[in-house]
Amino acid sequence: MSLDAVKALVFDTFGTVVDWRTSVSRDLAAFGKRKGIEADWLAFADAWRAGYKPAMDTVRKGLRPWANIDVLHRERLEQLLEDFGIHGLTEDELRYLNDTWHRLAPWPDVLPGLQRLKQHYILSTFSNGSVPCLVGMAKHAGLPWDAIYSADIARHFKPDPEVYLGVIDFFALQPGEVMLVAAHNGDLRHARSHGMRTAYIHRPTEYGPAQSKDLRAEEDWDVIVPGMDRLADTLLGEQAPGRPA
Amino acid sequence: MSLDAVKALVFDTFGTVVDWRTSVSRDLAAFGKRKGIEADWLAFADAWRAGYKPAMDTVRKGLRPWANIDVLHRERLEQLLEDFGIHGLTEDELRYLNDTWHRLAPWPDVLPGLQRLKQHYILSTFSNGSVPCLVGMAKHAGLPWDAIYSADIARHFKPDPEVYLGVIDFFALQPGEVMLVAAHNGDLRHARSHGMRTAYIHRPTEYGPAQSKDLRAEEDWDVIVPGMDRLADTLLGEQAPGRPA
Repeated sequence: MSLDAVKALVFDTFGTVVDWRTSVSRDLAAFGKRKGIEADWLAFADAWRAGYKPAMDTVRKGLRPWANIDVLHRERLEQLLEDFGIHGLTEDELRYLNDTWHRLAPWPDVLPGLQRLKQHYILSTFSNGSVPCLVGMAKHAGLPWDAIYSADIARHFKPDPEVYLGVIDFFALQPGEVMLVAAHNGDLRHARSHGMRTAYIHRPTEYGPAQSKDLRAEEDWDVIVPGMDRLADTLLGEQAPGRPA
Repeated sequence: MSLDAVKALVFDTFGTVVDWRTSVSRDLAAFGKRKGIEADWLAFADAWRAGYKPAMDTVRKGLRPWANIDVLHRERLEQLLEDFGIHGLTEDELRYLNDTWHRLAPWPDVLPGLQRLKQHYILSTFSNGSVPCLVGMAKHAGLPWDAIYSADIARHFKPDPEVYLGVIDFFALQPGEVMLVAAHNGDLRHARSHGMRTAYIHRPTEYGPAQSKDLRAEEDWDVIVPGMDRLADTLLGEQAPGRPA
């Protein structure tokens, strides 16, 4: 297996690059504290995220016209505030809360790994997040992307083929010159089906201690590593001695 | 005139950010020296650039389907090699020459200015260059873009309205929240007509000593400055004392 042809690494972001559950729940809790609102903010974050795939599916199935993730997040937010009995927020506060998804923090291994990988590869997002979400997140967290590729550009959500084929075309590369880096076996399966190379990152607590899926690499992905630092070790051929692969 | 609403600065690249004439002619001359090919490489660069607008116009007028700037540059390159009597190059060499447009160097004021502006604004390309061209150029030169916006995304070339409206939509901003930074009065006129803010950068030698257009700001652009460092001074309110505006 040679990965020498790989020129661009494209990254799933939610879960793979950023720890959305910790970030969102802490951000909401801090807001709640300032406003004197008590709630189970971890449950709120989980419920918000649980609405993500069903909302995208309504777009993917053509049940509604294109709407990006900020629009879908906002609809879900308003419903959850109702469900959690939180009322009377201003439009500015609603926008601030919705933009919590633009303020996500990376897992600890991400920044050092990406900085090293950037010297040798094109690094891009490959995300169902919106362009403003991904740009905001990058500026907030210092993520050193060379380009932002988003569902907004394809006007399709993953796992529609248009998104995978779209990113290959975006960089004018061959499928085998693009590697998807993701913590999700499903995303990697789609990438592989389109001829892309695959790197699995182990994120067993993305959904908290009770996470039930993506607890291990389910196929022989091209690279299987616990984090971005080890991805850099593997791809750049700088295996730290004494650390098992 | 308040520019407080501006959130994103989008940059014309060829001429405004990078000195394509010096870069291309030197790059071609170095190639020629290695290969033992003699030619007037400044004339070659000028002739290559002279084919830029007419080639884009064939696409803009619908005379041919969408073709990005790399395709158009390649067609012109092959014609010019013929015209200059240069024969026998390999496919790899042709690709290397065509990619000279991915290896352009910035004007000296650009990197320090952009680094300062990046702390306060979203910085993006706004260019008829292709995504691979703009990403390659950024990696080559260290340009700290937050995002790459290109004619490739709009599938239209400037000055088609789709490109201007497209970049506003790309960042989900209002027109007045986006400022075009350009050395070309025509580009700025189109931006203003779509409600964008405008910054003129003075590049009187983009086309060499005999340059005949864009020698001055022809309208009352929101900002008129000689370079990116002064753009940062103006927008960030850090006027250096004793330096006239």
